[in-house]
Amino acid sequence: MVKKTRDPEKTRAHIIEVAFGEVYRKGFQGVSIRDIVAKTDLTTGAFFHYFATKNDLGYALVDEVIKKVTLETWIFPLAAYKNPIQGIISRYRKFIETVSDDFLTYGCAINNLTQEMSAVDAEFGEKLHSVMRLWIEGLEGYLEKAQNDGYLKKKSDPRKIAEFIVAVHEGSFGLAKSFRDKKVLWSSYYSLRDYLESVSEKSEG
Amino acid sequence: MVKKTRDPEKTRAHIIEVAFGEVYRKGFQGVSIRDIVAKTDLTTGAFFHYFATKNDLGYALVDEVIKKVTLETWIFPLAAYKNPIQGIISRYRKFIETVSDDFLTYGCAINNLTQEMSAVDAEFGEKLHSVMRLWIEGLEGYLEKAQNDGYLKKKSDPRKIAEFIVAVHEGSFGLAKSFRDKKVLWSSYYSLRDYLESVSEKSEG
Repeated sequence: MVKKTRDPEKTRAHIIEVAFGEVYRKGFQGVSIRDIVAKTDLTTGAFFHYFATKNDLGYALVDEVIKKVTLETWIFPLAAYKNPIQGIISRYRKFIETVSDDFLTYGCAINNLTQEMSAVDAEFGEKLHSVMRLWIEGLEGYLEKAQNDGYLKKKSDPRKIAEFIVAVHEGSFGLAKSFRDKKVLWSSYYSLRDYLESVSEKSEG
Repeated sequence: MVKKTRDPEKTRAHIIEVAFGEVYRKGFQGVSIRDIVAKTDLTTGAFFHYFATKNDLGYALVDEVIKKVTLETWIFPLAAYKNPIQGIISRYRKFIETVSDDFLTYGCAINNLTQEMSAVDAEFGEKLHSVMRLWIEGLEGYLEKAQNDGYLKKKSDPRKIAEFIVAVHEGSFGLAKSFRDKKVLWSSYYSLRDYLESVSEKSEG
């Protein structure tokens, strides 16, 4: 037999990619290391060279995939908007317009894992919570900027609104997964938009 | 050995109570029939007399516990309010005021199971979805009543607002589970209250 030379970084990235898909579809507790190994060309022994335990693999999914996707989807694009409130509304609309069937079936990975794992494993919960905090803090920063630039009413609390926005996003994703229909996302979109316009200063620019 | 005479209905109800606690704390996939049986005085053989499969037990949790609790918490109490919109706001406030530590740790059962199970098992998903629909339809009915009685603006869509309210509730419960802190529930409460007041007719009865 010819022993293949492995690139450890590539192999690790491949395990994470495969594991993310499996966990996303079946839940963390619904997937075994055997399932994941079976979808790679690794042996179980080789797998454990990369991740000592199934939980370590789960933590890597949060730290390396879910954090990145969350910030890239909801925070980084806001830099392009003069009025961050319009940016938040616009990104939510674009997300719904282009939402995948997979998302309607399997839902939001951070939501799934938080509901499933945060009470079961404290470290899992803490890692998911840190992503949730980054998301909220990112929005809070942009809402403070909006307030300083005269787009958000002075009496509004950027932190509370940021928490509300994340709750609406997560809640609507959970509902869409239950309905398997993006229609319920639009209900949350229109109501959140109206709410954000109600806390916006009327003067435009 | 003395064979105890069992009351089948009582035994069944006891299994459901024990199973609900276990599933609520560990997730459906994180609990085995063995775990549940161990918390009763039944044998595994006797357990299967009541529920042929673990999934059948799960379906009974949704049909018999989660549906009842959802309607009793969020819909039935609205009958006591002249203005249903004030009822919805008031029930959300009372829920947060009296929320248990268990709820902050383990979250909302319908939310947990929807995120965990609806993509994994179609029948589970359909049963959870039917509870979600009852919740939304219950709110929709009261919002229609509010509209007919002049409390909700004529141009507002009761169905869309009902979907938004459930999304906010579920999203805030998910966030509270991540933060293990009711503070984030209050952020959603205040924003939802302000939103609902913005779609209310100003004239008070």
